[in-house]
Amino acid sequence: LAYRIKCTVAYDGTNYFGWQRQKNQPTVQDKIEYSLAKLHNEDIQIHGASRTDSLVHANNQVFHFDSTLDLTESKWKIAINNFLPKDIYIKKVEKVSNEFHARYSVKKKRYIYKMSINDYDPLKRHNVSFVRRKLDISLMKQEITKLIGTHNFKSFTGGTIYENYVRELYEADLMYDEGDLIFTFVGKGFLRYMIRTIVGTLVEIGYGRKEDILKILNDQNRDSAGKSAEPQGLYLDKIWY
Amino acid sequence: LAYRIKCTVAYDGTNYFGWQRQKNQPTVQDKIEYSLAKLHNEDIQIHGASRTDSLVHANNQVFHFDSTLDLTESKWKIAINNFLPKDIYIKKVEKVSNEFHARYSVKKKRYIYKMSINDYDPLKRHNVSFVRRKLDISLMKQEITKLIGTHNFKSFTGGTIYENYVRELYEADLMYDEGDLIFTFVGKGFLRYMIRTIVGTLVEIGYGRKEDILKILNDQNRDSAGKSAEPQGLYLDKIWY
Repeated sequence: LAYRIKCTVAYDGTNYFGWQRQKNQPTVQDKIEYSLAKLHNEDIQIHGASRTDSLVHANNQVFHFDSTLDLTESKWKIAINNFLPKDIYIKKVEKVSNEFHARYSVKKKRYIYKMSINDYDPLKRHNVSFVRRKLDISLMKQEITKLIGTHNFKSFTGGTIYENYVRELYEADLMYDEGDLIFTFVGKGFLRYMIRTIVGTLVEIGYGRKEDILKILNDQNRDSAGKSAEPQGLYLDKIWY
Repeated sequence: LAYRIKCTVAYDGTNYFGWQRQKNQPTVQDKIEYSLAKLHNEDIQIHGASRTDSLVHANNQVFHFDSTLDLTESKWKIAINNFLPKDIYIKKVEKVSNEFHARYSVKKKRYIYKMSINDYDPLKRHNVSFVRRKLDISLMKQEITKLIGTHNFKSFTGGTIYENYVRELYEADLMYDEGDLIFTFVGKGFLRYMIRTIVGTLVEIGYGRKEDILKILNDQNRDSAGKSAEPQGLYLDKIWY
């Protein structure tokens, strides 16, 4: 009899080539599957909710796998963490029904992006993107909210061909506090590089080098948008099922 | 003609065997002297205010050196940072009188120690010490303030013989917010491991395994105190001249 196990995991993406298994590059999925293989004495495949890119972090990524081992939820947590490196940590383990799928059952996801216009801080270099001062933050706040709703986001993606570039953003928000900016995006699904490209474009708007995010959106052309923001500011923050 | 240059530097201590130059181990002083040697085409010795241990961080360490190069303060900042790794950052450069000495002119220094009783967070593992819940924080707050003033701190040091173990603490304080603890200590000078041993002892008091910090202090015996707290929670935060 196999049990379906749902795990919530936090990781520091600094030392990984992203979530997804790759040949000859360390990834978060690798490390977790290695731990599960140790526990099971056989290969176990996990299914993640979201593929995070190189250097991107997660406060709460979710994955599932099936197992014939019958442990309590708290024993599972200890057992998996036991074979994981210190930059990956299983926060929660839940036994779920076989209907649950970490990727296909997602209702919505939240990503946050951390940026700073303060002086460079070496202690934050892996966790925040530092940009120059003189950003027009109130303009950026005004522009970001225009992205809420259902749009074709083709201008803000690259590297992958999709059948359909339409996505819905339930929330898009920018908070500013003492030099720190936090961008928040909530949606059911996102295109590749979509958040980093929206953030990078908003920064160029903040510098006055671009204007009118709806015009950029409506161009449906990657060349209209700005450079993607650096990966280390991005966090997969929460997933709802 | 030589100029005396005062620098304020922040660093992530994670990858260093502390501040002070050592044979065959990377230290922060090494990296800065390497950068200055590149700029001067000769060896330049720097004088730091404080020797931080392995894995300990600095928000504002101070050092000085003498140079015959005549650059503006902002050019100095750019020039030194140019040859430094990303985990060390010169925040400020000032031309000072030849009377100034980074170590001997110190009026007071502030150290902070960051601890968390929240669930382990891999993104904070190099910057905070995680400890188990159930600390009696109001008792710890009460005990820490008893250390303010002039005392013999022999119970809280190790590894170095001093002529005189008396030091004055101008401030000693513990703040608590949503699972995060910040200890603050201000004094003119500190003994080796003094802050980490005070913090470690306060934690044992918080767990009820030890009591009465003044009794421990008056024993003038390292065996009376608790284990030293882990290095990665400690920050040299500010120096006054």
